[in-house]
Amino acid sequence: MALNVYLAGEIHSDWRADVIAGCADLDITFTAPVTDHEASDDCGVTIMGAETSNFWHDHKSAKLNAIRTRLAISNADIVVVRFGEKYKQWNAAFDAGQAAALGKSLIVMHQGEHQHALKEIDAAALAVVTSAEQVAQILRYTLTGNVPH
Amino acid sequence: MALNVYLAGEIHSDWRADVIAGCADLDITFTAPVTDHEASDDCGVTIMGAETSNFWHDHKSAKLNAIRTRLAISNADIVVVRFGEKYKQWNAAFDAGQAAALGKSLIVMHQGEHQHALKEIDAAALAVVTSAEQVAQILRYTLTGNVPH
Amino acid sequence: MALNVYLAGEIHSDWRADVIAGCADLDITFTAPVTDHEASDDCGVTIMGAETSNFWHDHKSAKLNAIRTRLAISNADIVVVRFGEKYKQWNAAFDAGQAAALGKSLIVMHQGEHQHALKEIDAAALAVVTSAEQVAQILRYTLTGNVPH
Amino acid sequence: MALNVYLAGEIHSDWRADVIAGCADLDITFTAPVTDHEASDDCGVTIMGAETSNFWHDHKSAKLNAIRTRLAISNADIVVVRFGEKYKQWNAAFDAGQAAALGKSLIVMHQGEHQHALKEIDAAALAVVTSAEQVAQILRYTLTGNVPH
Amino acid sequence: MALNVYLAGEIHSDWRADVIAGCADLDITFTAPVTDHEASDDCGVTIMGAETSNFWHDHKSAKLNAIRTRLAISNADIVVVRFGEKYKQWNAAFDAGQAAALGKSLIVMHQGEHQHALKEIDAAALAVVTSAEQVAQILRYTLTGNVPH
Amino acid sequence: MALNVYLAGEIHSDWRADVIAGCADLDITFTAPVTDHEASDDCGVTIMGAETSNFWHDHKSAKLNAIRTRLAISNADIVVVRFGEKYKQWNAAFDAGQAAALGKSLIVMHQGEHQHALKEIDAAALAVVTSAEQVAQILRYTLTGNVPH
Amino acid sequence: MALNVYLAGEIHSDWRADVIAGCADLDITFTAPVTDHEASDDCGVTIMGAETSNFWHDHKSAKLNAIRTRLAISNADIVVVRFGEKYKQWNAAFDAGQAAALGKSLIVMHQGEHQHALKEIDAAALAVVTSAEQVAQILRYTLTGNVPH
Amino acid sequence: MALNVYLAGEIHSDWRADVIAGCADLDITFTAPVTDHEASDDCGVTIMGAETSNFWHDHKSAKLNAIRTRLAISNADIVVVRFGEKYKQWNAAFDAGQAAALGKSLIVMHQGEHQHALKEIDAAALAVVTSAEQVAQILRYTLTGNVPH
Repeated sequence: MALNVYLAGEIHSDWRADVIAGCADLDITFTAPVTDHEASDDCGVTIMGAETSNFWHDHKSAKLNAIRTRLAISNADIVVVRFGEKYKQWNAAFDAGQAAALGKSLIVMHQGEHQHALKEIDAAALAVVTSAEQVAQILRYTLTGNVPH
Repeated sequence: MALNVYLAGEIHSDWRADVIAGCADLDITFTAPVTDHEASDDCGVTIMGAETSNFWHDHKSAKLNAIRTRLAISNADIVVVRFGEKYKQWNAAFDAGQAAALGKSLIVMHQGEHQHALKEIDAAALAVVTSAEQVAQILRYTLTGNVPH
Repeated sequence: MALNVYLAGEIHSDWRADVIAGCADLDITFTAPVTDHEASDDCGVTIMGAETSNFWHDHKSAKLNAIRTRLAISNADIVVVRFGEKYKQWNAAFDAGQAAALGKSLIVMHQGEHQHALKEIDAAALAVVTSAEQVAQILRYTLTGNVPH
Repeated sequence: MALNVYLAGEIHSDWRADVIAGCADLDITFTAPVTDHEASDDCGVTIMGAETSNFWHDHKSAKLNAIRTRLAISNADIVVVRFGEKYKQWNAAFDAGQAAALGKSLIVMHQGEHQHALKEIDAAALAVVTSAEQVAQILRYTLTGNVPH
Repeated sequence: MALNVYLAGEIHSDWRADVIAGCADLDITFTAPVTDHEASDDCGVTIMGAETSNFWHDHKSAKLNAIRTRLAISNADIVVVRFGEKYKQWNAAFDAGQAAALGKSLIVMHQGEHQHALKEIDAAALAVVTSAEQVAQILRYTLTGNVPH
Repeated sequence: MALNVYLAGEIHSDWRADVIAGCADLDITFTAPVTDHEASDDCGVTIMGAETSNFWHDHKSAKLNAIRTRLAISNADIVVVRFGEKYKQWNAAFDAGQAAALGKSLIVMHQGEHQHALKEIDAAALAVVTSAEQVAQILRYTLTGNVPH
Repeated sequence: MALNVYLAGEIHSDWRADVIAGCADLDITFTAPVTDHEASDDCGVTIMGAETSNFWHDHKSAKLNAIRTRLAISNADIVVVRFGEKYKQWNAAFDAGQAAALGKSLIVMHQGEHQHALKEIDAAALAVVTSAEQVAQILRYTLTGNVPH
Repeated sequence: MALNVYLAGEIHSDWRADVIAGCADLDITFTAPVTDHEASDDCGVTIMGAETSNFWHDHKSAKLNAIRTRLAISNADIVVVRFGEKYKQWNAAFDAGQAAALGKSLIVMHQGEHQHALKEIDAAALAVVTSAEQVAQILRYTLTGNVPH
C-alpha cells in the first residue's frame, strides 16, 4: 500500500515540510501547488504575454496553476487542506470542494478560531486537526496501523 | 430547454430574490441553501439532541445542511456563487469547488475588491459578474438567445 | 425541489409508515424493499421453479429482490437505513454500503445499544437518529428549511 | 496479469494469513483493514484528542479507519469478505455493499449457519466459500487457470 | 416506482406482446429494437444510398439501428434478452454484454437446450426464465411485491 | 420513446428548420446553439462589459455560449453536426468531439467535397448524410422503425 | 506507449499464439480467458463442491471465470474478439458487448460466412479482420505507425 | 509528479520535436498521432484490403487511427492541440472536443489570424499560445514551478 497525498492551502508557513519530514520513512508521494507566491501570481503573463487589466493578468496565471492543481487533486488518494490564520484563502476552500466532490479522503487542518466558519468543510472531512504532526500521524496510521504512544 | 439553477453563497442580501424576479418569465427552477441563519446553525441539535462542544454542535447541523446542498448542486445545470463583502464565506468557495469538479457551469458574482483573492474560482467560471441583474441576463441569454438592449 | 427516499432495513415494525405519515404534505417519493417476509423469501422459486438446496432457493429470491433494491437505491436521493433490535440484518448494512459507495445521502436509525457495532456505518452517514419522527423532521428540514419547535 | 485483493471482515482468526500463505508464489498484492482491535478503536482520540461521549469517540476512529478501507476497496480488483461466527459484523456487510456498488468482484466466506442471513450478499458475489484454502484456490485459478487436483 | 424495460433478442415469435400483455396494468415503459426484419436490414441503404458490398450495406443499417438500441439500453432499468431456438443471435448476446457492463438488471429467457452455451450470460443475470409469463411475473413482483398464486 | 436532439454546426442556411419540419409529428425535443450571429459574438461584452482586445472580447462571449452548448450536448441523445461549404467551422468539429467523448449518437451532415477532411469525424459517427431530409428520415426510423418509400 | 490487449473468443485454434508471436518485439501485455476447456467448465464445482443440476454446475464455474474476464476486459485498452467457424460462441459476443459499453477499442475477427450475423458487432468495432496476422499488423501500426509492405 | 502529454493537430512542421526538445530534462511522456501522412491515410486498406469508394477507404484508416488517438487522449493529463496555417484541420478541433469533454487540461497553439475562428476552443483551454517554446515553458512550470527569466 502506498499513498498519493496532495497538500493544499496555506503557503506562508513550513507545514508541508513538517508533514513530509514526519513521514520520511513511509511510501508516500506528496504533491503541492506552486508555493513561490510571485511565480504563482505572474506565470501566466511571463509565459504568454502581459495584460493591461488585473483581472486577465490573474486569469492567465490562475489557469496555468489549475493545470497542476487539478491534476494533483485528481491523482491524490488523500487531500490535506490547511487554512492559516490570515487571508481569505478561498482557493483552499475551492480545492477542498473539488476533493470532496471527487470522493477523495479529506483532512482539514486549522486552529480553533476558524471552527465555525469552516464547519461545512470540516463536515465533509474524515479528520480535522490542528498540527502537521497530527497529519503525519494519520498518514502513518493509514499505511501501517501504528498509533503514536 | 429548461434550467435548474443553484444559487449558492452569501445570505445577507436580497440577491437571490433579484435574480429570480429578473427571470420570472423563464422556465427555470431555482434552488438555494437554507437561508434562515439560525435554523441552519441549529437544525442538527434541535432534531438530534444537544452537544456540549461547539465543534459537534456545528458538525451535526453542517451535515444536515449537506443533504440539501449536495443534492441541489448535483441536480443543477448552473451554479451561481455570490461572494459578499463580509465574512470568510468558505462554504461558498467549497460549493464552487464541488460545482467545478462535477462539471457544472459556474457563474461567480463578486465586487472588484475580491478579484485577486478569487482568481482561482473566477478562472474556473464561465462568467464573472458583479450584479444580480447580470446573472438574470445570462440566464435569459442561455435560454432564449436574447441579449439586453 | 422534490426528494426520492429509499427506506431500507428492518421490516418487523411500522417505522416506514411513521416516516411516511410524518411527511404526508411534502413532495417526497418513498420506495422500500418488499416487506412481505414470505414473498421476499420465496418469490424466486415460486416464479422460476423449486430448488432442492436452501442455498439456491435463497439465491433465486435474493436476486429477484436485488432487481428492486438496486434500482431503488440508485434512484434515491436519500437512503434511510434502520437497524432493529433483533437479527443479523446484514442486508441492511449491505444496502448502506451500496448507498455510501454511490454517494447517496445516508441517514442511519438505530438504538444506542448498537452504537459501537455500527460505528463505521454511522461514520458514513449524514445523520444518525433513533426515531422515525426524527427522520421525518430531517426530510422536512431538507425540503423546507423548517425546524421543529 | 496481477491482482490487488482486499481481505475484509472478521479479525479474530488467522484466515488472512492462510489466504496469503496459499498464494505465496502468485503476483498478488493483499490489503486489509487495521486488525489491531485496540488501535482501530482508539486511533481517533489518540491522535486528535479525547471525547466525552462514546459516539464521538467511535466516530473519530471510524473515520480514520475509513481513509484506509475506502482506498483499499477502491483500488482492489477482488474483495474477499469473511463473516465469522460471532458478533454483528455490520462493517463486513458494509464493505461488501461498497464493493458491490463499485463493481468489484466479490468473494464471500462464511459457514453454513449464516447462509440465510447472508443471502443478499451471497447473491451479489461471484463465489461463496467456507475456507481460506478455497479463497486461495480461486485466486490461483483466476491468475493461472490451474484447478486443484 | 415505475420501470423502463428493454426487450432485446429474438424477433420471430410473439414473446414481446405476451410480456407486455401480462403487465398491462403496471407502470412500465417497454422499448424494443425495430422488429421489422426487412426495415432493420435495409434502413441504411434506403436512407443513405446503396452499397456494392454486403459488408457496407449491413454496416450502414447496423449503425442506424445502434442509435435506437444503445439509447434504449442506456435508458432501461431492466434488460430482458430472449434467445430463440434458431440462428446465431449474436446481437442478443452483444446487447446482454452491454447491459451487464452498464450495470442494468438482466433477465435472460431461453429454453434448456441452450443452457450450457449461455452459461456466461446466465451467470451475469438476476433471473433466468423460459417463458414470457415468467418475465411478466418478475416485473410485477419488482413493482408490487405480489407473487403469483 | 422520445428523443432529445442537438443540432450543431453551420448557422447560415435553413437546415435546422428543415429537420424540425420533417419531424413535426414526432416526439422530439430539438435544441441548438444561439444562431443569431451578432448576439452570439457580442453577448459577453454586452452583459459583462467591453474589452479592449479581440481575444478577451471573444473569450467572454464564447464562455457564455458554452453554458448553453455544453448543457445541450450533455442532455442530448443524438447530436447532429452540419458542416457547411464555407468557413473553418472548428466549433462544429469541437462539438462533434465533445459528443463522441460523451458517447452520444453522432450524425454528421456535409457535402462530398469535405469527405477526406472530415474522415475522422465521419468515422466516429453512426450516420453520414448530405441533407436535412436524411436527418429527419433517420430520426423517424429511430423512433418508429419506418423507412421512407 | 504500451498496450494492454485482451484476446477474447474462440479457444479451439492457435490464433492467440499467432497474434502474440507477431507482436513479440512490441510493448504489449496480452490477457486471455482460461483456454483449458475442462478447467473452465469444472473449476466451480472442483473448488466449491459438486452440484446436482447442470445449471448450477455451470453457474458456479461461469462466475469464477467472470472474475478473470471482467478484470481483463476492464483493464484492456483493446479487446480482440474472434468468432470461429463452429458453436454458438455467445460468450464471445457477450464479451464484445461489455467491451463496447466500456468504450474499449474493439477488433473483431471472423470469416466472411458470418458477416451478416455479426453486423451489429462489426458496426461497433474499429477494425474487422479475418486473420491473426492482420490483428498483429493493427497492433503494430497502433504502437509504431508502421504499415506492412 | 510526472506528466503524460498528447500532442495533437498539425503534422506539417516540427513543433512536436521543438516541444519535446524543450522538455528533455523533465519527467514527461509524450504521445502523438501517426504523423506519416501516407501511412495514416492508407493503413486501413493496406492491412484490411482495398475499397472502391474514397469514403470507405478513408473510413477504414480513420478507424484504425482512432485506436491510437482515443487511447492517447484518454491516457493524457494534458492535451496540446496545434492549429497550423493551412487546411481545415477538423480532426484537431475534434481531438480538442474530446479532450475537453473528458476533463483534460487543454493547451491550444495557433497564430493570431485564427483567433476569432477558434474562440470556442480557446475558451475551453487553460492556456492559448503561439509557439512550441511557450508550450515547453508551461509544461516546465507545471512540473517544477519554474518560470522563464
